[in-house]
Amino acid sequence: MRDFRPDHRWLSMNTATVRKQRGEPWPLPQILDACAKRGVRAVSPWRDQVAAAGLAATASQLKAHGIELSGYCRGGLFTYTDETSRQAVRDDNLRALDEACTLNAPCLVLVVGGLPGALAGKAAHKDIALARSQVAEGLAWLLGEARARRMPLAIEPLHPMYAADRACVNTMAQALDLCDALDPARSGALGVAVDAYHVWWDPQLQAQIERAGRERLLAFHVCDWLVPTTDLLEDRGMMGDGVIDLPRLRGWVEAVGFAGYSEVEIFSRANWWQRDGGEVIDTCIERHRRCV
Amino acid sequence: MRDFRPDHRWLSMNTATVRKQRGEPWPLPQILDACAKRGVRAVSPWRDQVAAAGLAATASQLKAHGIELSGYCRGGLFTYTDETSRQAVRDDNLRALDEACTLNAPCLVLVVGGLPGALAGKAAHKDIALARSQVAEGLAWLLGEARARRMPLAIEPLHPMYAADRACVNTMAQALDLCDALDPARSGALGVAVDAYHVWWDPQLQAQIERAGRERLLAFHVCDWLVPTTDLLEDRGMMGDGVIDLPRLRGWVEAVGFAGYSEVEIFSRANWWQRDGGEVIDTCIERHRRCV
Repeated sequence: MRDFRPDHRWLSMNTATVRKQRGEPWPLPQILDACAKRGVRAVSPWRDQVAAAGLAATASQLKAHGIELSGYCRGGLFTYTDETSRQAVRDDNLRALDEACTLNAPCLVLVVGGLPGALAGKAAHKDIALARSQVAEGLAWLLGEARARRMPLAIEPLHPMYAADRACVNTMAQALDLCDALDPARSGALGVAVDAYHVWWDPQLQAQIERAGRERLLAFHVCDWLVPTTDLLEDRGMMGDGVIDLPRLRGWVEAVGFAGYSEVEIFSRANWWQRDGGEVIDTCIERHRRCV
Repeated sequence: MRDFRPDHRWLSMNTATVRKQRGEPWPLPQILDACAKRGVRAVSPWRDQVAAAGLAATASQLKAHGIELSGYCRGGLFTYTDETSRQAVRDDNLRALDEACTLNAPCLVLVVGGLPGALAGKAAHKDIALARSQVAEGLAWLLGEARARRMPLAIEPLHPMYAADRACVNTMAQALDLCDALDPARSGALGVAVDAYHVWWDPQLQAQIERAGRERLLAFHVCDWLVPTTDLLEDRGMMGDGVIDLPRLRGWVEAVGFAGYSEVEIFSRANWWQRDGGEVIDTCIERHRRCV
């Protein structure tokens, strides 16, 4: 297992971690400057942040700073209610793929979607099996497009508490079943993003990481699970402040050959989003060395 | 599948659903009177409510009303940090068993516990595998005591969002693995409580219900998952107000032979706990006929 104590060369900042500090959006160009200044070698930006800064400008700035991507957030949201929404989803995923290519991302991270309409507060139906079949269908289609662009797709299983509104793929086993069905050759074109926050509780976790193997472990995200957790979405903890045994988990992914970045992704409305962005990045660096 | 529309003979009220209305505890004797008045034939009371009303008095009142139990809430919390806490847990579980016997409960429902200390806000460690092994050990011991009293134990897998602080058994598969290990003969002494709120998201749910079979389906709980859900513990929805396909789920448990009560268990700080208790029971009756 790699020793993270001496430096933070394997730290990646997911830029949502510092997306709005003290109520003000922190623009991506400033986030990238702040990362570069601290020797952070990788980031994972969100599409809305890139759109605000400009795709070409972001690509140039990344190149100038020598910062690479550990992933691009995000595609997916495959579930739909009619042909119009189905087509809109496809078009949007193509744009996401093309952006990921422009930014030279190692993978496009996919949050697959829940019951259509649920995220807006009103689910169109209660048939999660139907939603899951739409995800499989959408993934199969997107995989063809992604292969043509040589852009790997990373399915991110989300915590079961997001099954209704964000992602109906909720376990590593379920994500890997999709990989087995759609890419039985383990070509590397399709895999998973393992986010500690979403999967730490899973009694099958170690076994499923072994099942995934190096070819299918495309990204590794860290933060922490706080006790108590006061919000389902925006109360994630800084590494070390919660109950996830992150070194153990990292040991499991490295044991099967994962050697990429640990990407810090923290949504924290009441705590980390209320601080100075530079302080947050500094804390991520320190905790990455000590707690991951 | 039974037709629930004509009456509510298979409705059970979990008494936590009306435990404190508008800030005031609603005492169990009044809850039981209100249930009896409405022809509710079964309840599942909590230990603290029974303790406040008196065990013998509760038993007498239940008998006088002709109300039976669909379960008794609850034993478990097996995880510990030292011999003193381990013994305290055992003593408390014995008391719970004896109370369940006095009340003629069909089963003692078990919430198995999470990381020790986490419920109080500070976990003693981060080793969920250790917590799970303590649960298996505690269950094995309790099963011996329960067999001697002929009181079935129902393991309730809790939603993964409670893995840290309430229960580290989080899927049907995991609970049934414990049943297989501890009661391979499927004697009926050990089984599961299937609560729709905790398991609705599980892609393996139908398969695991079939695996459980009639001998291991000891209780069936209903409420609903709201979108959005604003609190991890106390924002459960009334049946019909959320996204769980309850009739489908009930169809699955009935297909393997379950023919018991649908127990309504709703923790709802901001909505149902702010209403008149009688109104809540009336609503449960109406929704039970229409949405379960």
